[in-house]
Amino acid sequence: MAMDAAAEVDHLAAERAAARFDVEEMKVAWAGSRHAVDVADRMARLVASDPVFRKDNRTMLSRKDLFKDTLRKAAHAWRRIVELRLTEEEANLLRLYVDQPGYVDLHWGMFVPAIKGQGTEEQQQKWLPLAYKFQIIGCYAQTELGHGSNVQGLETTATFDPKTDEFVIHSPTLTSSKWWPGGLGKASTHAVVYARLITEGKDYGIHGFIVQLRSLVDHSPLPGVTLGDIGGKFGSGAYNSMDNGVLQFDHVRIPRDQMLMRLSQVTREGKYVHSDVPKQLLYGTMVFVRQSIVADASKALSRAVCIAVRYSAIRKQFGSQDGGPETQVLNYKTQQSRLFPLLASAYAFRFVGDWLNWLYTDVTQKLEAKDFSTLQEAHACTAGLKAVTTSVTAVARILMKTVSQLASGKQPVGTMAYMGKVQYLMQCKCAVNTAEDWLNPVAIQEAFEARALRMVVNCAQNVSQASSQEEGFYERSPDLLEAAVAHIQLIIVTKFIEKVQQDIPGDGVKEQLQNLCNVYALYILHKHLGDFLATGCITPKQGALANEQVRPNAVALVDAFNHTDHYLGSVLGRYDGNVYPALYEEAWKDPLNETVVPEGYHEYLRPLLKQQLKLSSRL
Amino acid sequence: MAMDAAAEVDHLAAERAAARFDVEEMKVAWAGSRHAVDVADRMARLVASDPVFRKDNRTMLSRKDLFKDTLRKAAHAWRRIVELRLTEEEANLLRLYVDQPGYVDLHWGMFVPAIKGQGTEEQQQKWLPLAYKFQIIGCYAQTELGHGSNVQGLETTATFDPKTDEFVIHSPTLTSSKWWPGGLGKASTHAVVYARLITEGKDYGIHGFIVQLRSLVDHSPLPGVTLGDIGGKFGSGAYNSMDNGVLQFDHVRIPRDQMLMRLSQVTREGKYVHSDVPKQLLYGTMVFVRQSIVADASKALSRAVCIAVRYSAIRKQFGSQDGGPETQVLNYKTQQSRLFPLLASAYAFRFVGDWLNWLYTDVTQKLEAKDFSTLQEAHACTAGLKAVTTSVTAVARILMKTVSQLASGKQPVGTMAYMGKVQYLMQCKCAVNTAEDWLNPVAIQEAFEARALRMVVNCAQNVSQASSQEEGFYERSPDLLEAAVAHIQLIIVTKFIEKVQQDIPGDGVKEQLQNLCNVYALYILHKHLGDFLATGCITPKQGALANEQVRPNAVALVDAFNHTDHYLGSVLGRYDGNVYPALYEEAWKDPLNETVVPEGYHEYLRPLLKQQLKLSSRL
Repeated sequence: MAMDAAAEVDHLAAERAAARFDVEEMKVAWAGSRHAVDVADRMARLVASDPVFRKDNRTMLSRKDLFKDTLRKAAHAWRRIVELRLTEEEANLLRLYVDQPGYVDLHWGMFVPAIKGQGTEEQQQKWLPLAYKFQIIGCYAQTELGHGSNVQGLETTATFDPKTDEFVIHSPTLTSSKWWPGGLGKASTHAVVYARLITEGKDYGIHGFIVQLRSLVDHSPLPGVTLGDIGGKFGSGAYNSMDNGVLQFDHVRIPRDQMLMRLSQVTREGKYVHSDVPKQLLYGTMVFVRQSIVADASKALSRAVCIAVRYSAIRKQFGSQDGGPETQVLNYKTQQSRLFPLLASAYAFRFVGDWLNWLYTDVTQKLEAKDFSTLQEAHACTAGLKAVTTSVTAVARILMKTVSQLASGKQPVGTMAYMGKVQYLMQCKCAVNTAEDWLNPVAIQEAFEARALRMVVNCAQNVSQASSQEEGFYERSPDLLEAAVAHIQLIIVTKFIEKVQQDIPGDGVKEQLQNLCNVYALYILHKHLGDFLATGCITPKQGALANEQVRPNAVALVDAFNHTDHYLGSVLGRYDGNVYPALYEEAWKDPLNETVVPEGYHEYLRPLLKQQLKLSSRL
Repeated sequence: MAMDAAAEVDHLAAERAAARFDVEEMKVAWAGSRHAVDVADRMARLVASDPVFRKDNRTMLSRKDLFKDTLRKAAHAWRRIVELRLTEEEANLLRLYVDQPGYVDLHWGMFVPAIKGQGTEEQQQKWLPLAYKFQIIGCYAQTELGHGSNVQGLETTATFDPKTDEFVIHSPTLTSSKWWPGGLGKASTHAVVYARLITEGKDYGIHGFIVQLRSLVDHSPLPGVTLGDIGGKFGSGAYNSMDNGVLQFDHVRIPRDQMLMRLSQVTREGKYVHSDVPKQLLYGTMVFVRQSIVADASKALSRAVCIAVRYSAIRKQFGSQDGGPETQVLNYKTQQSRLFPLLASAYAFRFVGDWLNWLYTDVTQKLEAKDFSTLQEAHACTAGLKAVTTSVTAVARILMKTVSQLASGKQPVGTMAYMGKVQYLMQCKCAVNTAEDWLNPVAIQEAFEARALRMVVNCAQNVSQASSQEEGFYERSPDLLEAAVAHIQLIIVTKFIEKVQQDIPGDGVKEQLQNLCNVYALYILHKHLGDFLATGCITPKQGALANEQVRPNAVALVDAFNHTDHYLGSVLGRYDGNVYPALYEEAWKDPLNETVVPEGYHEYLRPLLKQQLKLSSRL
């Protein structure tokens, strides 16, 4: 049940009746467990039924009113979390369903984890209780006006002053202004600030510092701290509820013990020393953040595809015979070939996200036992899956490295294990002869493996011909990027196939997932046909597969995401499909409709129509 | 000179100095003539220097204030046009540079052309002078809540009443509400309304009617007319300046002579009669509208790519050696492989747009001589180039038809002429052996021809195997779409090659255009490598070309678009490249920065921080 209220109409009832699987069990497969479905359902309803959390007016609010509304919702959410004694799992879900980006996201998602990951035991004991009770609000001040992904290029300085046992935090240039951190502009009282640590005249690179920004008495910026919001972002509503901020320091002093000292310390005398905690631990945090991004991407895609599939089932266009009803847009093959691969991708990303979550836990446990063997692969795979181009190099490098070690007989493991079959994969011919053969997961997986391996080997050969490895990487970076993408797509397909090979209860649920897995794999195959053909692993004749299996189940497959109408926030994606009356009603709520004759008529329209515009050489 | 004011800094000076061609001559090649450059320059400066036309605050205005600002700018633009006695060419450019969508766009772009194209001589003499002087404001009311592209599905009725010699305009259902027309919501006094003509009890399908909507005395909606704005659109600013509207009729009566009667009439007695004017004339208008859309697409792309190239030259990231400066983002191959094909596309679309413009003139002249021979092709090509999927079928159909006629020995003409070489193209092997060979326009054109033809022939064979042609079209629609796209891309490449083969003055200008033509063609070739390989016209070894020729000229190539900073409206794309100080200054203008402590602090942040949130079971 994903409806907000008892629906009196269901324009999609026929679609739902035609579905060939058990939707309730598919919800379980999507959410991970029955418990996960139930708790999400409970939190979604709690939010949807609370008038404070309404969001249908969000696009009509001015930036100031939208921000104030965000503060109000955050306070109300916290009140409900306390009153109802919600668990951490419940509280996280409640915030998810409030669905309005704000300072709390950074407080819980970046400030607290940074202290947990990089603070000493004492620092955690001092700061975490304050953060847990919201006695302070924290954000994460890393990026600068002139520096984003390249953290080592940050310019903010933290210079140790042994006379007072303090660090002096300073912004030496305009481009060193902190720029973009969420929650910084207006809400946060504290930040973890990343700056170049300078002591005894030497620059030790980027470290984190806990810095108080605003007075806890009246919220005004502390002396030497300049704070502001960086202005509106593209899009109606959405991220404009967040106070992404700008921050400059003019020689702001903080006690020495506000440097996050888990990995390295500055002593009372100003000596820089490393602790014996391995610095690879920092990568663990990045792996965590990236796996959340993959999970978020799946959530966002599932919402978009839910709206698109439902509306495509409601919307009719062309195809009328003799004045009869027009054809549902969802019945057009061209629409199916666009939508169904995205529907399949939502499920594919969901399952690879589950695997990443497992990978993170596994890496963390190994790290604690000082086993770094899987860290590099986890780092590369999560970076690739996050698909941040600058970091994709990490994937490409590990692929190049693995290939170069094959000759020495070193057997690759984990997601690179397939490279061990190099002899076979480099010369295998695809056994697919008919379209139906593509429904065989073994054939799919082998085609993806052969394509990825051949692209990787080809890159490695080209890179090795360059005058230096760095030069080779630079010259071949677009090819390396494509090889890395091929590897990542192999991982996604593999994890989906693995999921489908498990026991999955519910009538028809497993069959639907198998079919979606095929749709995803064949979509990628079609989209990158050039790669598959160019590496010779398949021939031109092996092609296309119909989306026919998906069509009758499409609406039910998006129902299985279990999104409430409140969470979707879309008139077009309503559960009951009653789109047109709702669209019509919504339109009248625009402030422009408050008056029949618009403001400006008397000044600008009437004089024009009456040919009474005053002419002057200059206004 | 594209600067708004004398620049004191030019952070892009080194880029400009490195360019290997004459930028002033490239401006001529882009604009079409020296005259076109000069008049555009004059109008752009007129707008940029007028404080009424400022637009930097646009994203911060509420919807109501933005709309009022649009009315103000439209009135001021009209005042300037009258005062300065601007020509039609100048007035159109002035409106382009005002760069704020509003009712005038529909008045001049749709209302006036509809009356010109579909009105009789008498109707034109009555209505056009009123429109030309803005004594009335008109819009174009076609789409309905339930009906977009499928014009034949519209539900609004215009029923002739012989008793009073009037048409009764009526909206019989909710889905028949007019929905989306620009200028309708708040500004227009009149509309060309499309409705089903019913007379003597018979439905004669969709016809146009001039209907007055609002009082010319006080702008209030006339009796029986319900009018409103359909609400905010996605994006900050931009199309929210337009009053896209909703309109319902409750038995509104208009005189019979307000039916647009050039193609058909209803007599005083209610008889429906056709005039002897060929109805193909209607297609002429569609060809005109579509060629403007292609031209607009090129303009929009040129602005986006101008901003992206300039900022990529300013922005530095990674690649620092020993603490030296970081690398310009524009130097990364991955960035080049994204940006340069778009830069090349802006030029490619520009030149194919010029050709479409010629095609429109040619078709119009032929139509007046009752020669319909080229109309179908023009209709299909413009539809394809407009890339509206629903209409792309038109392209696919003409391709299928042309192929099927080959056997009968009928020689295809126009853009389909290459199909006459079917014997050769179906079995030719690409002569390209090295990357450099791809710089030969003959090789490029042949590869595109072979690919398009083989896809078309393949589709035709598959369609012919279906039980009926309609069934075949339905089943194969995704393939047909791809074949049509291949044909359209062939046209774009061909027109670019033809342009480059002309005499083009200016040092290095022709060479740059040749190079951009190659970049565009090879980008398409790489992107759709699967098609090229699958049809066997090229082999896997023939691949990749560097973007090296573009790099030193990139900034100058976007300078040649001659966009003012006002028109670009982008801090990141400033002509002088002085991005960071400007970005910093802009941020402070956000209304959220009016106060240091945000509104809502006392209600929602302070109680949270002070642990004084009032708990209650319900707010």
